[in-house]
Amino acid sequence: MDYREKLMIRPGAKVSLADIDPGFHGHHESHEKAMPELGETLSEITRLQELLYAEKKHALLVVLQGIDAAGKDGVCWHVIQAMNPQGTAVTGFKQPSHEELAHDFLWRIHKKVPGLGQVGVFNRSHYEDVLVVRVHKLAPKHVWEMRYDAINAFEKGLTKAGVSIVKFFLYISREEQLERFKRRLDDPARRWKISESDYSERELWDDYVAAYEAMLTKCSTKEAPWYVLPSNHKWFRNLAASKIILEALRAMDMKAPEPSVDIDEIRAKYHKAEKDG
Amino acid sequence: MDYREKLMIRPGAKVSLADIDPGFHGHHESHEKAMPELGETLSEITRLQELLYAEKKHALLVVLQGIDAAGKDGVCWHVIQAMNPQGTAVTGFKQPSHEELAHDFLWRIHKKVPGLGQVGVFNRSHYEDVLVVRVHKLAPKHVWEMRYDAINAFEKGLTKAGVSIVKFFLYISREEQLERFKRRLDDPARRWKISESDYSERELWDDYVAAYEAMLTKCSTKEAPWYVLPSNHKWFRNLAASKIILEALRAMDMKAPEPSVDIDEIRAKYHKAEKDG
Repeated sequence: MDYREKLMIRPGAKVSLADIDPGFHGHHESHEKAMPELGETLSEITRLQELLYAEKKHALLVVLQGIDAAGKDGVCWHVIQAMNPQGTAVTGFKQPSHEELAHDFLWRIHKKVPGLGQVGVFNRSHYEDVLVVRVHKLAPKHVWEMRYDAINAFEKGLTKAGVSIVKFFLYISREEQLERFKRRLDDPARRWKISESDYSERELWDDYVAAYEAMLTKCSTKEAPWYVLPSNHKWFRNLAASKIILEALRAMDMKAPEPSVDIDEIRAKYHKAEKDG
Repeated sequence: MDYREKLMIRPGAKVSLADIDPGFHGHHESHEKAMPELGETLSEITRLQELLYAEKKHALLVVLQGIDAAGKDGVCWHVIQAMNPQGTAVTGFKQPSHEELAHDFLWRIHKKVPGLGQVGVFNRSHYEDVLVVRVHKLAPKHVWEMRYDAINAFEKGLTKAGVSIVKFFLYISREEQLERFKRRLDDPARRWKISESDYSERELWDDYVAAYEAMLTKCSTKEAPWYVLPSNHKWFRNLAASKIILEALRAMDMKAPEPSVDIDEIRAKYHKAEKDG
């Protein structure tokens, strides 16, 4: 299945999350049955990321958004880890610092955009400025409302400069989130992550849904489309994310750079000589 | 075997690389036989890096130095990849930019030091300023000669701030390097890496050895020791590097942070309620 086709938000389409099933898992019956395909996909990502690094004509930016416990860290672990850490940087955007707040909202983001040959992953991103900021009224409406256009223009500029942008919204159900919080509580190694605000944020679920829908509706563009990843099944989320990343890499149509030297000459000059000598 | 004991340069010891066998592979007979131990070591690194990230009381800085083709990238692939990319950043230090050259040699390095909870890997580092700079006379002797003390003071300051520093010198023989260059030539996917200077640098082998020996002799300190990794066998290099990194993580004696909330209270308040409701 072409997951890009299936999971992409078509530019201009009005998104209603109620129409999307967070438990969707395609034609795959189970984690076990999907494992070989995930393995092959990751190997191919590994190979193409090496080529990206070698060729230095493209960059890849992966944006991860999703409510708490939707699996943003999981995608880093299970998909991004297929790439050489040497050419890959993950940036987690947390609450902005004083210095960051003294600048426009894209200032801190722009600094972390990957250069040619590099892969950048944003765990949360500039979209927080139309999500948490909107839901918690951290800025007045006329401020965050202008940001959708600003984001589209910003992303368009990046794509013109050779950055392929893949944006994933990790979508889980409200019940699945509660279940995941419960599993965190039960796990001594992870329960430190729990805070009261995890639960109080749940009260704002509908406001978040409205903010996500606006983001997906207004900012899925030809240049930088949004993909909604059904994420109740972690394995399907990983498979779909890896397939879409692989397609984005394939679309770059890369090839290894030509050597800057004459290979035969080098061989004759240095390798023959030492052998005989 | 305690590889830290075996491979560490004792502070104050005068290093002669001629006394070290780059083909050393401990008591391990082969790659295959060492694989299970590597696997276990990497799993344990994975676990402890998660703890490092959670606890945020320590940072780990891994410095990789070694002549071309010694395997710095290979260590990134096979060891560093065990860690969550989310908390791990690899920085390759190349020829300094104009802006970097306008500052002292530690300026660009300092910016990339990992913060508490983070792992930083330097693929080449501030040591280039007493290696390539010394061999190619890019700065006068009185300039680079002062740098050893400056480096020791800098690293001491980092360790006081909670950064554990592990420095690996990847040591291969001159013959092994030539063999690896040949394999690159033979591999269409990698031959673009070959340049004439790879070979001309080989003429300076003895000068590099002298510079490495000075670095190892002057900058292996109690706070931030150097380890010489025999690297003719890639699998042994990976095993030794991973074992030493694991010991550095273990020495941090970390534990998962306490939850900031009362777990039982949260359970009763949110999870029971939803179940009954």
